[in-house]
Amino acid sequence: MANEIRLSDLAARIGAKLAGDDAVVTGIAPIESAGPGQVTFLANPKYARFARDSAASGIIVREPVAGGRAAFLISENPYYAFVCAVEVFHPPTRPEPGISPAASIHPGARVGRDVTVAPFVAIGDGASIGDRTVLFPGVVVGKGSSVGDDCRLYPHVTLYDGVRVGSRVILHAGCVIGSDGFGFAPSGSEYRKFPQIGTVEIEDDVEIGANTTIDRAALGVTRIGRGTKLDNLVQVGHNVEIGRDTVIAAQTGISGSCRVGSRVMMGGQVGLAGHLEVEDGIMLGAKSGVAGTLRASEGRIWSGIPAIPHQAWLRVSALLPKLPELFRRVRRLEEGSKTKEDE
Amino acid sequence: MANEIRLSDLAARIGAKLAGDDAVVTGIAPIESAGPGQVTFLANPKYARFARDSAASGIIVREPVAGGRAAFLISENPYYAFVCAVEVFHPPTRPEPGISPAASIHPGARVGRDVTVAPFVAIGDGASIGDRTVLFPGVVVGKGSSVGDDCRLYPHVTLYDGVRVGSRVILHAGCVIGSDGFGFAPSGSEYRKFPQIGTVEIEDDVEIGANTTIDRAALGVTRIGRGTKLDNLVQVGHNVEIGRDTVIAAQTGISGSCRVGSRVMMGGQVGLAGHLEVEDGIMLGAKSGVAGTLRASEGRIWSGIPAIPHQAWLRVSALLPKLPELFRRVRRLEEGSKTKEDE
Amino acid sequence: MANEIRLSDLAARIGAKLAGDDAVVTGIAPIESAGPGQVTFLANPKYARFARDSAASGIIVREPVAGGRAAFLISENPYYAFVCAVEVFHPPTRPEPGISPAASIHPGARVGRDVTVAPFVAIGDGASIGDRTVLFPGVVVGKGSSVGDDCRLYPHVTLYDGVRVGSRVILHAGCVIGSDGFGFAPSGSEYRKFPQIGTVEIEDDVEIGANTTIDRAALGVTRIGRGTKLDNLVQVGHNVEIGRDTVIAAQTGISGSCRVGSRVMMGGQVGLAGHLEVEDGIMLGAKSGVAGTLRASEGRIWSGIPAIPHQAWLRVSALLPKLPELFRRVRRLEEGSKTKEDE
Repeated sequence: MANEIRLSDLAARIGAKLAGDDAVVTGIAPIESAGPGQVTFLANPKYARFARDSAASGIIVREPVAGGRAAFLISENPYYAFVCAVEVFHPPTRPEPGISPAASIHPGARVGRDVTVAPFVAIGDGASIGDRTVLFPGVVVGKGSSVGDDCRLYPHVTLYDGVRVGSRVILHAGCVIGSDGFGFAPSGSEYRKFPQIGTVEIEDDVEIGANTTIDRAALGVTRIGRGTKLDNLVQVGHNVEIGRDTVIAAQTGISGSCRVGSRVMMGGQVGLAGHLEVEDGIMLGAKSGVAGTLRASEGRIWSGIPAIPHQAWLRVSALLPKLPELFRRVRRLEEGSKTKEDE
Repeated sequence: MANEIRLSDLAARIGAKLAGDDAVVTGIAPIESAGPGQVTFLANPKYARFARDSAASGIIVREPVAGGRAAFLISENPYYAFVCAVEVFHPPTRPEPGISPAASIHPGARVGRDVTVAPFVAIGDGASIGDRTVLFPGVVVGKGSSVGDDCRLYPHVTLYDGVRVGSRVILHAGCVIGSDGFGFAPSGSEYRKFPQIGTVEIEDDVEIGANTTIDRAALGVTRIGRGTKLDNLVQVGHNVEIGRDTVIAAQTGISGSCRVGSRVMMGGQVGLAGHLEVEDGIMLGAKSGVAGTLRASEGRIWSGIPAIPHQAWLRVSALLPKLPELFRRVRRLEEGSKTKEDE
Repeated sequence: MANEIRLSDLAARIGAKLAGDDAVVTGIAPIESAGPGQVTFLANPKYARFARDSAASGIIVREPVAGGRAAFLISENPYYAFVCAVEVFHPPTRPEPGISPAASIHPGARVGRDVTVAPFVAIGDGASIGDRTVLFPGVVVGKGSSVGDDCRLYPHVTLYDGVRVGSRVILHAGCVIGSDGFGFAPSGSEYRKFPQIGTVEIEDDVEIGANTTIDRAALGVTRIGRGTKLDNLVQVGHNVEIGRDTVIAAQTGISGSCRVGSRVMMGGQVGLAGHLEVEDGIMLGAKSGVAGTLRASEGRIWSGIPAIPHQAWLRVSALLPKLPELFRRVRRLEEGSKTKEDE
C-alpha cells in the first residue's frame, strides 16, 4: 500500500497528466468529502461545483475546472483512472496460502499451488482447485467440479457436482452454482422431476454476487460468458447463455433457456420470460419485464412491463397519472356530443 | 445406467409404442442437437420441422410426423415419457451412506439407516433424520426438527429448531426453513418483536429451490403441501398455507397468512399481499401483483399489477404504448369540439 | 415459562386492566381458534364478531365488546399487549453458553463472556464478539469484524472482514453483511472492478432476514440505523444509509447510495433506483418502483411504477382495466365527429 505518493508519480501510474502543484498525497476519498492530502475524481460535469469547492490536493478530471484550487490529473476516463488510483492506495490483499486442518479435502481432489483453504471447506472427489485460489470458510466444491487460478470463493459458496469455474472468478458469499433447474413433467395433477443432468460453465473474469443462484442445464450447459458481472440475489435458470462483459443488477431473474448477448446491461429486478433472446448491447431499465425477444435494431434501451423502447415507456409512464383526467375529458366530450345530438 | 438399449425395450420402459426401426440407442438429447444413436422428443407440434430434419434414431411423439426418418415412440404425454427415458440413461445416483467424523451430531438426535451425513453437518438435540436421507456439507438441522426418509438436503440448508420435513423432499443449497416471520408490534416509533413460536411443515415429495426462505408461523404452522415445487429465491411468509402440487417460479414472494390452493401455478417475481387466498388451479403470470383474493370462478389465469384476468391484461398491455396517441386524439377531438362551439 | 397465570396477574404484567372473571389461563392463541384457558387479542374492530363468539378465557381489547363471554384485558395498544403476553408464556430461550471444540477461533479474536459458539463457526483475526452473543453453526465472522452484546447470528450468517454489528442484533440464516458493492469502471467493452474498501455498520436492535444481502461501501459506510427491521431476501447496495425504526419487507432492493429515512415502511418487492432519498415516515406500497427522491411533503404513501402518491395510483390502477373501453369510446367520438364533418 502506498502511504505517500507524489501526484506526478500517481499520474504516471494511472495514465493521467498532471496540471498543477505536484503535492504529496496519502489517500483517496469521494468528491464531497475529500480534503488536503487526498485525491478524488470528477466524472460527471454536473458536479463541477464540488471540484471548484474541493479542498482535495488532486482531482482526476477529463478537463480542468475553472476556479478550482486542487491540482488536476487529466484523463480520458476519469472514473477508470480513479479506480486505478484506489488500487495504488489499497492494493488487493489476500489471505495467506495454506490448507486448514479443519477442511475436508477428498484424496481424489487436486489442489494447486499457493491455495488458501479455510476451515470447514469441503472439496469432493475428482474436484480441482487452481493455483493461488482462495476458498473462504464453508465453501463446498462438489465432486468433479473445477475452479481455475486466482479465484476467490467467499464463505458458503456452493458448487454442485461437475460444474466448471474459470480463472480470476469472484464468487460472493452464499451464491449457488449448479442447483437443479426447475423442470417437471406433469402427469395428471402430479409432477415428475426432469433429471437435471447438464452443467454450468462460468468463464474467466466473471464476478457473481452474494446469494445469487445459477441452475445447471437440464441437458447441456448453462453458461456465463467471460467478464460478465452479476449482482446479488440474481436468478439464472437452466440452459441460459449469457455473453461477455454483460452486467446484471440485483434481484433480476432470467428464465430457462434465455440467450442474453454480450455487453448487455440490466437494471435491478428485471424479469425475462423463458426461451427468449436479448441481443448484444441492449440495456434494460430496472423492474422491466421482457416477454419476447429484444432486437437491438428495434431499440437499444427497453423498459416497462412488458418492456417497450425506453423513450416510449417514459412517455407512457408520464401520462399514466393523467389517466383519470383523460377519462373525465372523454366523458365531457361524450356529453357534449350527446348534447349536440339532442339539439 | 443403460449404455445401450433397443428402442423396443426403451418403449416398454417408458410406456410408449414403437413405430419404425428397432435401433439400438445410447443416450438422449434435445431435438435441436440429437444425432444417430440418440433419443429425443417432440412435445410442441410447433417444432415438427425439427422432427422431420432430425438425425436422431428415435423421437418420442404424440403422433408420427410425416417425412421424418427417425423411429417414433408414440406416447400420450411425450414430455413425461422423455423424462422417463432420461432416467433410463441417467438413473438417480446418491452419495455412499456413512456418517462423516467431521459432522456434529448431538447424542440426543436420532439418525436412521443408510443415511449420508457429510462433513460439517450439525444436527441438534432431539432432531431425527429418516432412512436413506442425504445431508450434504454444512447442512444444519435445528433442535427437535425432523426430516423424513429418502430426502436430500444440499449444502448449507438450514432447518431452524422444531420444523418438520416429510419424505422424498429435496431442499436445494442455502434454503432456509423456519426463520422468524416478520412481525413487530409498534409502540410509539419503536418496534417490539412478536415471538415467532409456530413452526413449518414441509409435506412429502416437495422440492424447494436454492436460497429460498420459508418463515415459521407466529402461532401455528406454515405449511407446504405434498408434491409442491418452489423455485430459487422464493419467499414464503409466516402462517402461509400452500396446497398440493402447486408450482411457484423463482423470486416470487408470498406474504404472511396467504392461502394458496392446490395445482396453482405462479410465474417468476409474482407478489402476493398478505392475508389473501388464491384458489385451486389458478395460474398467475410472471411479475403479477395480487392485492386481493382470486377466485377461480372469476378467472383461471391472472396477470398484471394489480392482477386482472389475463386476457384483459393482454388487451390493456397492448394498448399502453398507444397512450400518448390516445391523449393526442382526445386533444384533437376537444379542439374540434371547441371549434364547433366557437362557430 | 408461565404454565398457569391468573388474568389479573397477566394484566399487571402486560400493562392492561382486567374487566371480567379472574380466570386461570395457560396459553395464548389467535382469535379464530382460542379456547378455554387461553388468551387472545382483538386489534381490528372488523373482527369483533370473533370476540363475541370466542371461547377464550381472556381477550385483550381496546374497548370491551358487547355480548362476549370472555374476560377483557383492556389496553391502549392490544397488539403490543398481546406480544407482551406471548412473551409471558414463551419467554425467549437461548442455547447454553459454551464454545464448541469444533469451532475455529483465531487466537487474535476476542470472545466475550457467556457466549455460545456452535460447531463450524469461524472467527477471524482481530474480530470481537460481545457478551452473551450466540453464534449458530456455520457462522463466519471475518477479520477485524465486531459483534456487540446479546446478538443472535443464525446458521451460515457471513460477516465479511471489518464490518461492525451493534448489540441486541438478530441476523437470520444465510444473510450476508459486507459483500462487495457492485461497482465497475468500463474501459472499452471490459470492466475493471472498483475496490470496495468501505464497510458496513449495523446499529443496535436491528433485525435482518434470512438470505438478505448488505453490501459494504465503496468508500465510507453502508449504515442500517438503530431498531430497523429488514425482512428476507432484501438487497441493500453499497453506501446506502437507512435511518432508525424503518421496516422493509421481503425481496425489496435498495440501489447504491440511497438515503432512506427513519420510520419508513416499505412493502415487498419494492425497488429504489440509485442515489435517491426517501424521507422520514414515508410508506411505499408493495412492488413500487422509485425513480427519484420522495418528499414527505408531496405524499406520505407512494405506490406504482414509477411511484406516485398512493391515492392517485389507486385511481389509475382502477382505470387501467378500462383502457380498452376508453379506446373504443374515443373511436366512437371520432366517428361521430367525422360523420358531423361529412354532413
